[in-house]
Amino acid sequence: MEKGILMVISGFSGAGKGTLVKKLLAEEEDYVLSVSMTTRKPREGEREGVDYFFTDKETFERTIAENGLIEHACYVGNYYGTPRAYVEQQLAAGKNVILEIEIQGAMNIKKLYPDSLLLFVTPPNAQELERRLKGRGTETDEVIAGRLSRAHEESLGIDAYDYIVINDDLDRCVEEIRTLVRAARREPVRMQDFIDRIREELKVYQK
Amino acid sequence: MEKGILMVISGFSGAGKGTLVKKLLAEEEDYVLSVSMTTRKPREGEREGVDYFFTDKETFERTIAENGLIEHACYVGNYYGTPRAYVEQQLAAGKNVILEIEIQGAMNIKKLYPDSLLLFVTPPNAQELERRLKGRGTETDEVIAGRLSRAHEESLGIDAYDYIVINDDLDRCVEEIRTLVRAARREPVRMQDFIDRIREELKVYQK
Repeated sequence: MEKGILMVISGFSGAGKGTLVKKLLAEEEDYVLSVSMTTRKPREGEREGVDYFFTDKETFERTIAENGLIEHACYVGNYYGTPRAYVEQQLAAGKNVILEIEIQGAMNIKKLYPDSLLLFVTPPNAQELERRLKGRGTETDEVIAGRLSRAHEESLGIDAYDYIVINDDLDRCVEEIRTLVRAARREPVRMQDFIDRIREELKVYQK
Repeated sequence: MEKGILMVISGFSGAGKGTLVKKLLAEEEDYVLSVSMTTRKPREGEREGVDYFFTDKETFERTIAENGLIEHACYVGNYYGTPRAYVEQQLAAGKNVILEIEIQGAMNIKKLYPDSLLLFVTPPNAQELERRLKGRGTETDEVIAGRLSRAHEESLGIDAYDYIVINDDLDRCVEEIRTLVRAARREPVRMQDFIDRIREELKVYQK
């Protein structure tokens, strides 16, 4: 069985990552979502083991020490990390594992797993980002202003991603991610077994 | 109009590059082939301006001096190069321009055009490569042995390509190249205009 791809999905707050990931998971049985561990307090409606594994600082730091996380980062005073066991089991079972994480975590993942696939989700323009953030109607003007301000900073990191996904139409976007994953499987970094094998086979013809 | 992509197609001799490129050109009107200039003598059946522009050493070197080639390389004692004018006109007209060149030329192209797309075509295994080379029935055993020997050397350069195309089935392969080109358009290196624009737009929200 072909090993799954470790996929990072990042993007501006308000780009529609969450909806996109939900649709991808609902439509495709070979994609699974990695659930992060965090020391942040649960927000209303968030469920343990579904949205996050909520834990305390001591447990989190012990998990780091035991090498139980494949990456972790500190963000606005709280730890966030990706538990190793689930990710490795699912990849081995041929599933593409999605991590929905920030850029700092994304860079750590790429360093550790050069064959991971980093996707950055963005709306078609900044005006649309503002419109979507305001349209949610759930956040204060101050929070929205903070997210828009951070978006510029995040935009400086886009070049480090493998692909940019413009989220203008949800169905088109899910289809595009499928295309990107198919293409990613043809990059040399994810075809090392094939390359090693054919090099070895070709050795017999060397003069 | 979206600018075309400069595509390099390399691969083992016997991988079926030529057939693949012909099929791609026949089926897709947004792909064109760049015709190389060479100082090599025409082989039987080769046509001026279709297979190559045949020329002499003096003219070739003057063309280099006049910056009329986007890349050139020397291979088995002959010059091969890619005329600049045709490539740039076609890219501007939105066509994907295919260069069927060796690895040395491919590396030169990538250095000059970081947004070029390098594809490496290979059969599924070495035995199949040998079978195809022998199946042609047009070359001596010595020539075939030489090509197979060179294939190992070429295989050492595969990692520098953007994508590897396994040519097992011609129709599937053409379809796969379409997928790879679609994906390539979503890489940051080919989305610099978009990235620059959204960064600029996001500046107004900075605190």
